[in-house]
Amino acid sequence: MENKKNDFSEWYNEIIDTAKLSDKRYNIKGMNVWLPYGLKIMHSIDSLLREYSEEHGIEEVSFPVLISREQLEVEFEHVKGFENEIYWVTKGGTTPLDIDLALRPTSEAAMYTMFPLWIRSHTDLPFRVYQIVSVYRYETKHTRSFIRVREIHFYEAHTAHINFEDAEKQMVDYLKIMEKLSTDLCIKFSMNIRPDWDKFPGAMYSVAFDTPMPGNRTLQIGTIHEYGENFAKNYGIKYLDENGEMQYVSQTTFGLSERLIAAIIGIHGDDKGLVLPYKLAPVQVIIVPIPGDNYDEILEYSETIKSKLSGLGVRCQIDNRDYTPGYKFNDWEMKGVPLRLEIGKRELQEQSVTISLRTEKKKTKAKFEEIDHIYDYLNQVNSDIQDKASKFYEDNTVFIDTLDKIKEDKMVMAYWCGSKACSDRIEALSEKTALGNIKDNNSTGPCIVCGKTGKLSAFSRTY
Amino acid sequence: MENKKNDFSEWYNEIIDTAKLSDKRYNIKGMNVWLPYGLKIMHSIDSLLREYSEEHGIEEVSFPVLISREQLEVEFEHVKGFENEIYWVTKGGTTPLDIDLALRPTSEAAMYTMFPLWIRSHTDLPFRVYQIVSVYRYETKHTRSFIRVREIHFYEAHTAHINFEDAEKQMVDYLKIMEKLSTDLCIKFSMNIRPDWDKFPGAMYSVAFDTPMPGNRTLQIGTIHEYGENFAKNYGIKYLDENGEMQYVSQTTFGLSERLIAAIIGIHGDDKGLVLPYKLAPVQVIIVPIPGDNYDEILEYSETIKSKLSGLGVRCQIDNRDYTPGYKFNDWEMKGVPLRLEIGKRELQEQSVTISLRTEKKKTKAKFEEIDHIYDYLNQVNSDIQDKASKFYEDNTVFIDTLDKIKEDKMVMAYWCGSKACSDRIEALSEKTALGNIKDNNSTGPCIVCGKTGKLSAFSRTY
Repeated sequence: MENKKNDFSEWYNEIIDTAKLSDKRYNIKGMNVWLPYGLKIMHSIDSLLREYSEEHGIEEVSFPVLISREQLEVEFEHVKGFENEIYWVTKGGTTPLDIDLALRPTSEAAMYTMFPLWIRSHTDLPFRVYQIVSVYRYETKHTRSFIRVREIHFYEAHTAHINFEDAEKQMVDYLKIMEKLSTDLCIKFSMNIRPDWDKFPGAMYSVAFDTPMPGNRTLQIGTIHEYGENFAKNYGIKYLDENGEMQYVSQTTFGLSERLIAAIIGIHGDDKGLVLPYKLAPVQVIIVPIPGDNYDEILEYSETIKSKLSGLGVRCQIDNRDYTPGYKFNDWEMKGVPLRLEIGKRELQEQSVTISLRTEKKKTKAKFEEIDHIYDYLNQVNSDIQDKASKFYEDNTVFIDTLDKIKEDKMVMAYWCGSKACSDRIEALSEKTALGNIKDNNSTGPCIVCGKTGKLSAFSRTY
Repeated sequence: MENKKNDFSEWYNEIIDTAKLSDKRYNIKGMNVWLPYGLKIMHSIDSLLREYSEEHGIEEVSFPVLISREQLEVEFEHVKGFENEIYWVTKGGTTPLDIDLALRPTSEAAMYTMFPLWIRSHTDLPFRVYQIVSVYRYETKHTRSFIRVREIHFYEAHTAHINFEDAEKQMVDYLKIMEKLSTDLCIKFSMNIRPDWDKFPGAMYSVAFDTPMPGNRTLQIGTIHEYGENFAKNYGIKYLDENGEMQYVSQTTFGLSERLIAAIIGIHGDDKGLVLPYKLAPVQVIIVPIPGDNYDEILEYSETIKSKLSGLGVRCQIDNRDYTPGYKFNDWEMKGVPLRLEIGKRELQEQSVTISLRTEKKKTKAKFEEIDHIYDYLNQVNSDIQDKASKFYEDNTVFIDTLDKIKEDKMVMAYWCGSKACSDRIEALSEKTALGNIKDNNSTGPCIVCGKTGKLSAFSRTY
């Protein structure tokens, strides 16, 4: 395995191949095949998103993949923002279609033609739905598994509210979901209000979740958008308020994608391979029976342990393949399995298990009864991952107060006046783009470029 | 609600609207929006399919939606079978693509270009994968929710084997999955070996699962296909056998779709609305507190019951809306919820519950402790549904031995020589098409058309 620090890009591609997460040899560039192990990780993330969405009153729907050109062109800024990236269906069978159909690049245009049929009165609000689907972008840039692909596994929540204030409350709710998710994923991020020229096409404002990755770039792992009444006015999404007057709804969205997997691979992985927080791990505990005289009994004891773990809701397997224990240890470490239980002659005699955490070198002996506390061990792994990820985040974030430090290979925090001119100057010097003002941070200081009063902001090269 | 017997089509459309399963008002014909309740039912079916597939060693993958024209044209019969139904992507952004890309109508062409990269040796076989994705057909026929749509929720398993015999074993394995599934869904079906002219394009033979539906037509709810080496030869899927020789694999597939929901609606539903087998029900038990003096205590007791049920893994809700009990009873019956628990003053006093089954008129009183046996009640509902569905199947299937009975409004079983001429004659007389020879039935008799020796076969009008 390539050394992660040496050549992150190479290491990243190699671990995706070795752990069999996805296969990029499909003959359409940027459209990859999800392999069983990678898909299971994605589905675990989807399950968490379903759980948290439902908790927050957001219901799952699923819209068609095709959007007619007329439907898409209702909101001018929106379609303009995507026009170079849309796949167009122009033929059905052997005959040209009357109107071109877009593969959804995102689903505003699909959903907002239906919203007026569903939202009539203030009693229908707030209206909150999400879907987990593939979206399509005809990317011309260099593609990279899970980071920049042409078919994207996508979570998108869309809500409508009686007014801007209520929509703003939804934005806070999204942050709660993001916080729960990032705890499960052990990922730390910065919340940046994107500059106007980089916000979502059609939005009032966009907040992005950016996380530093190896390779000295940040990765945008999610976004929330406040649309105000912009889409509502274009798509005619109105309701009868309590006074019997028609009002436009205010809208918000929340988007996440398979980039979450990229972040997990990139931030948590090491030279042995993947490191997976336990809620994401397809196998949470691997049991390795150690060959010896009474192997049948060892296997039987392993089965007992497996049943006990399954009863606790743990995803576990016994590795009974015809390989050496050492080979198996490496293999499951590469796969990022949080806990390994070794069961040999000694463990059988003592009715114990030897526990290895993916995140620690030492092994622990535990009595059979200790298995009831398996979640303590799993949480320990998560806590180790979290600590390491926090340290990585801190190590790769720096506050600077003079422009000469702008080239530092980190996510840079600095005061910025907000002008395009000053951000262009920063980009020219360092290839770093303005991620935007730090959300919920009111400190001000002199812009590191022009010296005018600025807000605390983040700059970085990006994936 | 429309009377089901009176006008099945109207009843079917109405229940889909009323129970909010899907919305067909999206502005592309045949592309419907999955609403939360309908999507949850579909996801429950998906979960069962995932469980059974994994049990049978079939692993989940996910392939790109786009297939290049070259890739699709590798197998001539295959592409010819679909050429009039394919949506073609011809533009990316504003520029024409070098090669047209098809929205998958099915995934043979997508998968089988990757199989040669994954299958090298006999040790890689059997190779078994499935995916749950949308597939696309540019239907020119009249569309109907869940039955004939242009974006189809689809399960497709694909396997590769060392030889035909091993592939045939897989076909038997598929039947085991289908049997488990149909038990959960309480649906009975006939297994028909499709005539050659109606088999899957590129297959050696196809077996379809056909079930009689109201409206005097059968619905094809699933198919399994034996491909032999046909696709393997076209796509070059070979392996090194134990003797060091290259051999072509033998392949099979298994396809199911959202038509399973159509069958459940159509076969089990009644004039009150949906009737759902409990494994599919988004709400398995609805608790209706009956207003009275001590309503707070009644609610509290309802919560206790809900916790107990949730602890047993039951999906349950308390309906605390501001409607009359009668309204709520009707509403949840319309939604097909298997069990209703009524909790009033009397039940609170006695620490009991009143249980109503969706399938029976009478109510049962049970002690609080009885709730531990809730699955007995749920299984009773399934058993009632099963009985009714079996009766419906029997009532709508008939054996005939003379051609004059061919017009009977049922799925007709008759001896048939297998010739196209005789099936054309049957179709001309009755609009019934040949569903094919009954699988695993070896009885023979004189063809009802020409009198030559024939096999027992099924004929029906179809959806």
